[in-house]
Amino acid sequence: MFTSEYFMKIALKEAEKAYKLNEVPIGAIIVCNNQIIAKAHNQTELLNDVTAHAEILAITAAQEYLQTKILNKCTLYVTLEPCLMCAGALYWSRIGKIVFAAFDYKRGYSTLSTKALHNKTEIESGVLQEEALFLMKEFFKSKR
Amino acid sequence: MFTSEYFMKIALKEAEKAYKLNEVPIGAIIVCNNQIIAKAHNQTELLNDVTAHAEILAITAAQEYLQTKILNKCTLYVTLEPCLMCAGALYWSRIGKIVFAAFDYKRGYSTLSTKALHNKTEIESGVLQEEALFLMKEFFKSKR
Repeated sequence: MFTSEYFMKIALKEAEKAYKLNEVPIGAIIVCNNQIIAKAHNQTELLNDVTAHAEILAITAAQEYLQTKILNKCTLYVTLEPCLMCAGALYWSRIGKIVFAAFDYKRGYSTLSTKALHNKTEIESGVLQEEALFLMKEFFKSKR
Repeated sequence: MFTSEYFMKIALKEAEKAYKLNEVPIGAIIVCNNQIIAKAHNQTELLNDVTAHAEILAITAAQEYLQTKILNKCTLYVTLEPCLMCAGALYWSRIGKIVFAAFDYKRGYSTLSTKALHNKTEIESGVLQEEALFLMKEFFKSKR
């Protein structure tokens, strides 16, 4: 039941919330022992803040919930490959696992650095990537 | 008068504030037209948040002050080379210039990626690095 697809669908719901609010549609959730402890979507426009990516907001919320900076027992599900900023934050949090949907070949961390993440962080990629990419493409199409 | 040393001394004062509060002593300021529009020091312990680096707090404050996400006419002065998280945030802000004191050969952005920053961002390094390193060394010595 608690598959990567199950949790990614919830992250996609967050991305849809962003879409409806005219934000780049990216969503993230953080899960610990199969319990969702943080949900967030991109809010860079609303907050007028380049640091308000879904991942950063989810990390901050999860730290607050767990009352610890170290998230090594948690998994982040995010609809787009994290950028270097978010990968750097995930490094400092020592997140246990990252599951992302679509690759970002332009600003995704894996294109820009081989050492962005903590060496103990597991990675799973491509989960529901078509759904995530569809949302991104529709968003940018509507902006043209 | 408004030299890099002049502004870095103010960033070092921020780092000293962090030191006194038992935070890793790193300080940052953001300057626009020779006016300081943001001052911050590392608050990861106080806020229990890995994202609360001096640079991130300064960027958020500068965006709020200027009411824009784009800081291309601003200079960030920081006492330690930014990590990948902070470099990633600086990329998204398109900061005009970064002046840093000490290099961080372990987690500094320049060790980990050649494309972390925006290609229009100017860099100046090594400004008052002895003072910045002294503060860091004293801090970690006191922790042993």
